[in-house]
Amino acid sequence: MKKKIISLSTGLMVIPTFAYASPSVESVVSSVDMVWMMIAAFLVFFMHAGFAMVETGFTRSKNALNILMKNLMTMSIASVLYFLAGYGFMFGESLGGFIGSNGFLLNGHSDQIGFFVFQAVFAATCATIISGAVAERMKLGSYLMLTVFMTGLIYPIVGHWIWGGGWLAELGFIDFAGSTVVHLTGALGAIITVLFLGPRLGKYTNGRVNVIPGHNIPLGALGVFILWFGWFGFNGGSTLAADPALIPAVIATTLLSASGGVIASAAYSYIKFQQIDASLTLNGALAGLVGITAGTANVSPIGATIIGLIAGIILVEAVQLFDRVLKIDDPVGAIAVHGVCGIWGTLAVGIFSVEGGLLYGGGAALLGVQAIGIAAVIAWTMAATSVALVIVTRFGSIRVSREEEVAGLDFSEHGSSAYESSRGIFNENYSQNVGADFGVGLIKRLDDLKSRKRKPRQIH
Amino acid sequence: MKKKIISLSTGLMVIPTFAYASPSVESVVSSVDMVWMMIAAFLVFFMHAGFAMVETGFTRSKNALNILMKNLMTMSIASVLYFLAGYGFMFGESLGGFIGSNGFLLNGHSDQIGFFVFQAVFAATCATIISGAVAERMKLGSYLMLTVFMTGLIYPIVGHWIWGGGWLAELGFIDFAGSTVVHLTGALGAIITVLFLGPRLGKYTNGRVNVIPGHNIPLGALGVFILWFGWFGFNGGSTLAADPALIPAVIATTLLSASGGVIASAAYSYIKFQQIDASLTLNGALAGLVGITAGTANVSPIGATIIGLIAGIILVEAVQLFDRVLKIDDPVGAIAVHGVCGIWGTLAVGIFSVEGGLLYGGGAALLGVQAIGIAAVIAWTMAATSVALVIVTRFGSIRVSREEEVAGLDFSEHGSSAYESSRGIFNENYSQNVGADFGVGLIKRLDDLKSRKRKPRQIH
Amino acid sequence: MKKKIISLSTGLMVIPTFAYASPSVESVVSSVDMVWMMIAAFLVFFMHAGFAMVETGFTRSKNALNILMKNLMTMSIASVLYFLAGYGFMFGESLGGFIGSNGFLLNGHSDQIGFFVFQAVFAATCATIISGAVAERMKLGSYLMLTVFMTGLIYPIVGHWIWGGGWLAELGFIDFAGSTVVHLTGALGAIITVLFLGPRLGKYTNGRVNVIPGHNIPLGALGVFILWFGWFGFNGGSTLAADPALIPAVIATTLLSASGGVIASAAYSYIKFQQIDASLTLNGALAGLVGITAGTANVSPIGATIIGLIAGIILVEAVQLFDRVLKIDDPVGAIAVHGVCGIWGTLAVGIFSVEGGLLYGGGAALLGVQAIGIAAVIAWTMAATSVALVIVTRFGSIRVSREEEVAGLDFSEHGSSAYESSRGIFNENYSQNVGADFGVGLIKRLDDLKSRKRKPRQIH
Repeated sequence: MKKKIISLSTGLMVIPTFAYASPSVESVVSSVDMVWMMIAAFLVFFMHAGFAMVETGFTRSKNALNILMKNLMTMSIASVLYFLAGYGFMFGESLGGFIGSNGFLLNGHSDQIGFFVFQAVFAATCATIISGAVAERMKLGSYLMLTVFMTGLIYPIVGHWIWGGGWLAELGFIDFAGSTVVHLTGALGAIITVLFLGPRLGKYTNGRVNVIPGHNIPLGALGVFILWFGWFGFNGGSTLAADPALIPAVIATTLLSASGGVIASAAYSYIKFQQIDASLTLNGALAGLVGITAGTANVSPIGATIIGLIAGIILVEAVQLFDRVLKIDDPVGAIAVHGVCGIWGTLAVGIFSVEGGLLYGGGAALLGVQAIGIAAVIAWTMAATSVALVIVTRFGSIRVSREEEVAGLDFSEHGSSAYESSRGIFNENYSQNVGADFGVGLIKRLDDLKSRKRKPRQIH
Repeated sequence: MKKKIISLSTGLMVIPTFAYASPSVESVVSSVDMVWMMIAAFLVFFMHAGFAMVETGFTRSKNALNILMKNLMTMSIASVLYFLAGYGFMFGESLGGFIGSNGFLLNGHSDQIGFFVFQAVFAATCATIISGAVAERMKLGSYLMLTVFMTGLIYPIVGHWIWGGGWLAELGFIDFAGSTVVHLTGALGAIITVLFLGPRLGKYTNGRVNVIPGHNIPLGALGVFILWFGWFGFNGGSTLAADPALIPAVIATTLLSASGGVIASAAYSYIKFQQIDASLTLNGALAGLVGITAGTANVSPIGATIIGLIAGIILVEAVQLFDRVLKIDDPVGAIAVHGVCGIWGTLAVGIFSVEGGLLYGGGAALLGVQAIGIAAVIAWTMAATSVALVIVTRFGSIRVSREEEVAGLDFSEHGSSAYESSRGIFNENYSQNVGADFGVGLIKRLDDLKSRKRKPRQIH
Repeated sequence: MKKKIISLSTGLMVIPTFAYASPSVESVVSSVDMVWMMIAAFLVFFMHAGFAMVETGFTRSKNALNILMKNLMTMSIASVLYFLAGYGFMFGESLGGFIGSNGFLLNGHSDQIGFFVFQAVFAATCATIISGAVAERMKLGSYLMLTVFMTGLIYPIVGHWIWGGGWLAELGFIDFAGSTVVHLTGALGAIITVLFLGPRLGKYTNGRVNVIPGHNIPLGALGVFILWFGWFGFNGGSTLAADPALIPAVIATTLLSASGGVIASAAYSYIKFQQIDASLTLNGALAGLVGITAGTANVSPIGATIIGLIAGIILVEAVQLFDRVLKIDDPVGAIAVHGVCGIWGTLAVGIFSVEGGLLYGGGAALLGVQAIGIAAVIAWTMAATSVALVIVTRFGSIRVSREEEVAGLDFSEHGSSAYESSRGIFNENYSQNVGADFGVGLIKRLDDLKSRKRKPRQIH
């Protein structure tokens, strides 16, 4: 497998045609399929940059490093763990339709390595949804332990049921690219963890719901654009092959539903608040994307537009519901976007699918199957995440102390700050000792913070 | 169209070969072409992130949310509207070479859905060029109405003339990827709108030309890199097929022209001002890209480098001309980049085309046709945009009030701010009521602002 | 080569099948290979956005424009110069295995234009590695002269030895995607230049090692994600063909090694400093990526994970070594990431290669060849860069003056600032005359700065 450049003693190097010993049509088909799958995997990987930017931008600057670390480490841990265990549990030989049982480390199945790569970046996506909802208060260590459970077991089991030939696949449950498998599962993990954690300090005081504004919405908006861009790979790659008829249909429904989500959340926020709300409109794009993910290959372009429009409205109401009524503090709206719109998208298949959908004369059978699947995933993920969190709490509190939360997790967990201009905020010596430099910003640590005479002022 | 994973009761799931019933060479060709087109479409979509970052970074922080909303909503409205109407007007059956007349909602032409996706993201590109030029003073509602005209009618008609088999195509007008169709058309819409709007407050005072610096040039620079990245899809995808000879030629000319634009604008700004101007050099990349767009498939690598070098110089002069002489206030230089360099690029085909270009012995015939096309597009777009704006002004002023402009459009149009650190700038209660949170930042609104006793201080 | 849309007088435009006169399997293979290579080239191009963001984020805001200009101009100059000279020196007819001797301007080899594009963006990558290490103190003009040497001669010669059929290729040296060719070469150029330059003011004072924190770590983190994303093209495209077995293996090892780098640097910084260091962990991803680049096609997924884990630990120690022990001031850690991990990655091939690696029963022969290659590249690049710098210093000091460095290179070299909020920092008239506007921010220039009565205060 050496570099395929060869030397021609008589002239310039030539670009060798790869050594297909007389290429067959079948081998070219494999090539095209693999090119498509790999590019889709790159795009899904890039979604993690999008998540990182959305979650960083929509939270406070004092927690920016921490959220970046959560996102980067989720990607990394998920990849390795999915290789060690997750892939086998998800796509290994089925034990009763519930869990896979071999293929760990791709043992004996190295021919599936391309498919593994694509699935690994999906697994990381599911896990990273949690990071946004728990931002600004969850300990990094506890979060990483939870990530191990999510990507190693909880998500692969859901995946096995639906994509690995498990019992929901047998039932006829349709989730083409993961409204339920990825987004709902992640959001369920998020809601349970948020219930364990409680709201951020100052979010709900004396019956008031306070606004804790994000510190950099342009960065968050860039994240939304990156997520949308990556989603073309998320949905498009789920075709698993370069089918020239299926791919453009999937991309068109993805584009139109996301657009519908933006338009509806902008319009609906205008109707409701007499202004186009920027945060809701940005999340509206994600709502439309989550909404179309299950049915992207099964609905018409018009159906997709309608699914997106409805997702945009649902998003606005769901955010209000969690934030104001249920008082579940989700800094980036992840539960509304990925959870509620994930459910909507999964049910929408039963309504809009051109084969078997309610509106296409298919009756309620498919819709019923979709509802069963949602209920099962809710039951399993909520229960399993609860158990996982009970285990994690054995290692200590999963929430940083009040003092650490006030100081910001960048300081308390990383001994540093995300922005130069934030240095010197604690005391005049801070900037000389602590900072985002290499391996140096670690001298003043938590103990130090705790022993400080002068209480740290709240930064933001 | 269910997920193509099937269960093998005896072992691991296998990645199924897609059900090509004995794949033919022709079907693989379709696959490769579609993969190329779709990836190109993703890249063109991603250019909207680039536009959003460039326009946000080069304007003031008090208008950042507003510009982000303009960009996101342009993409969304354009997609849906192009599906409803624009595509039919552009590629439908020609009425006298002037406008298409069927294919709305892809009716009867669902086999063109891949081509539609690619063209839809192009349509949005044309429209979004306007958003930069009108930044910091145009009402969002008026802008969106104009976007409807641009993507629904004005742009599709230009597109029909040149790409849809219309009269300019018949004449032999060459615009491979859209120096005229996309960039000049967008810039003409921009200049007319800017003439309707007038300059920003404080831009031209007492005969002085004042600088209104952008608030985040690194974000703007990221936008330029994203645009250049996306442009490989813009020009590359315009091949419409994975031609192994044409694609690399197009990519090479795109790379070299953009590079030439950077080098020339840096060098020319150094000669002119004794310093390399960062803003002009960043725009120099875009100048080179717009410049090569028309002739990317028709000129040699050396020709492309020269086209880019000249574009970089033209850019510097054009920016000076609009800003200092004509006093047309274009915050991001969109008219110079997309308009003047769009004209240059279109004419450059007539000069540098290896088939029929002036320098390749083709005489002035092609150059003449190119000039006719430019003149026609200028006449149509300026007239049509003027009419559209007259209609839009029927719904009220297209410009925000002086007070709103001073306060910033983020506050006046969205009741929020893009950065955490900007909160509390009006008064001490602001941060408790208004912010970039979900559906909450809307309590204090415009009326509120107007009735305020204490005049808001200018933020920037 | 006109746009391939044709008019059908009877109906809608059709998307023409590209005029393959009866497509052959071989022509489709060419198409797929070219699509893969071009997309990989786009991704490698996009890595320059990643470098720009990493380097900007990890340095101070007063030098942001300058670093952006360095990155943008490196890309541009490298493309043009590699077209003029570099490609010929690298892949032209070999003179004794040392240097290529024809193919300049692709003369007579226009069929290699796709390969040229891919290699051109690689050449720019090598050069841009230097920009991070020399940030905040090197004159832009001197840096650009050095870039000319790097991309025009120094890098192409290394490339010829290893990828152009030169003497190291003959020896059996393996560097699949460039741990040595690109990364080590760039880092060696960096270390020599840093030795010529000396550390930044205030970095090492009275025997103390001071921290100079970066001003925007979220932007830097985005850069890391972009680099990782682009690296899939860097390694993946180095297959030079859409081999359906080789590509996913390369992508999997890239993903797992980068993940290993993140995990190890996070864990090791935690062990060493009791906190997960954000900067080191971000660089850990790059360490894992540089580490796998040489052996990406030659090692197993498990081998790749181990290579990445070790790279993450090496990175932490190397950063400490350069920063604290050797007192070599490298603001972004480029020498540790690209140099030390580049050496590690090259040696790792000799250890982990499944064909001929030490751990796979291949003995030390391959490892020895790898070591010889590293030594040769070190000798050549260090000597050649030294000579180049001696030449560059003939044109004047390569370092800005103390006063300029304190004021920031954005002001002294570009007469402007990267952020709106930085305006007015010198005096009250500054904002009226100087700013990041088009061609205007140039009135107050260096002479002006020097003649100022009141010393500029240090901004950061």
